[in-house]
Amino acid sequence: MAVVFVAITPLGTATPSVSRWVAGVERILRGTRLTSQLTAMGTLIEGDLDEILAVVRRMHEHPFTEGAVRVSTSIQIDDRRDRPDHSIAGKVRSVEEKLK
Amino acid sequence: MAVVFVAITPLGTATPSVSRWVAGVERILRGTRLTSQLTAMGTLIEGDLDEILAVVRRMHEHPFTEGAVRVSTSIQIDDRRDRPDHSIAGKVRSVEEKLK
Amino acid sequence: MAVVFVAITPLGTATPSVSRWVAGVERILRGTRLTSQLTAMGTLIEGDLDEILAVVRRMHEHPFTEGAVRVSTSIQIDDRRDRPDHSIAGKVRSVEEKLK
Amino acid sequence: MAVVFVAITPLGTATPSVSRWVAGVERILRGTRLTSQLTAMGTLIEGDLDEILAVVRRMHEHPFTEGAVRVSTSIQIDDRRDRPDHSIAGKVRSVEEKLK
Repeated sequence: MAVVFVAITPLGTATPSVSRWVAGVERILRGTRLTSQLTAMGTLIEGDLDEILAVVRRMHEHPFTEGAVRVSTSIQIDDRRDRPDHSIAGKVRSVEEKLK
Repeated sequence: MAVVFVAITPLGTATPSVSRWVAGVERILRGTRLTSQLTAMGTLIEGDLDEILAVVRRMHEHPFTEGAVRVSTSIQIDDRRDRPDHSIAGKVRSVEEKLK
Repeated sequence: MAVVFVAITPLGTATPSVSRWVAGVERILRGTRLTSQLTAMGTLIEGDLDEILAVVRRMHEHPFTEGAVRVSTSIQIDDRRDRPDHSIAGKVRSVEEKLK
Repeated sequence: MAVVFVAITPLGTATPSVSRWVAGVERILRGTRLTSQLTAMGTLIEGDLDEILAVVRRMHEHPFTEGAVRVSTSIQIDDRRDRPDHSIAGKVRSVEEKLK
């Protein structure tokens, strides 16, 4: 089970706003069965690593289909294999418990 | 107004679990007046960039005070100056509106 | 043609030194025909994006085969399709020319 | 002694080429006494962490003075305090020795 953080940004767009592009990419992710969470700086995805990477590859391609000629994609993988509850919610819960 | 994503990880800790360290760092942030959001892969912070960077600098230092000898810190800054509503909530809302 | 920056770090290793792990991962990359450059903070790779991602996937897996239970992998993709000379050397040359 | 990797990218520029902007930022860095290395995906800097962060803050500001309204800056800090030879060259050498 892996937790992945991905941010996809087209460069050289006419305006500094990228939410339209992010929405297009997010739509692809939401069309899958993967659990995810959109944040202000990228999207968290949990699940099987190969399944996630296949979707991220499709997400990265999307801005090109909408006219972008350069796309910058950042992928951060946290792959932990010694415990079964490695998940978006589990990781936050683990920190919050220690903050009580 | 900037939105910053920060992840602070000690290397060479005895166990693969880092939640104890993340909690120590998070406690520093919550002791400030900055708006933030803990996620599974790092913490989002919004506000004045210099104020944020000063706090991040203190956060980065914290694991050393608890015994770490090597700390890996990732900081992603999104600094936008053409609109006043650049914030953690505003950025997510902007994408969600386009997804409707 | 894409230029990719990848950094693979095991967490919870006994010592803060990770060069042994980086060497193991680097050996996999050097066994391919991809052009790459090892730097102090990660490795640059250039070539066909799918070919690169397949190798990165193998590189990410490697520390687990050597005993790691948690691996943190950071992948930064710069995929530019409007010019043919998008490469590790070409990108640096382009900046250096403007610095003269 | 810290080794830092920094990449500064303006968003919403008229063209997908960012080398002009990178050159402007690089010029600031080269005007300091810090040791650095320009790579295809960002610049490596070594030295005292506070000194580096002060320069990175000035680098981040530069694109705004040249007309950018949004700047995305990525900073990766590797801060190791258990050995004195933590440097750009030392880190690469350490991996290369294990690859022999």
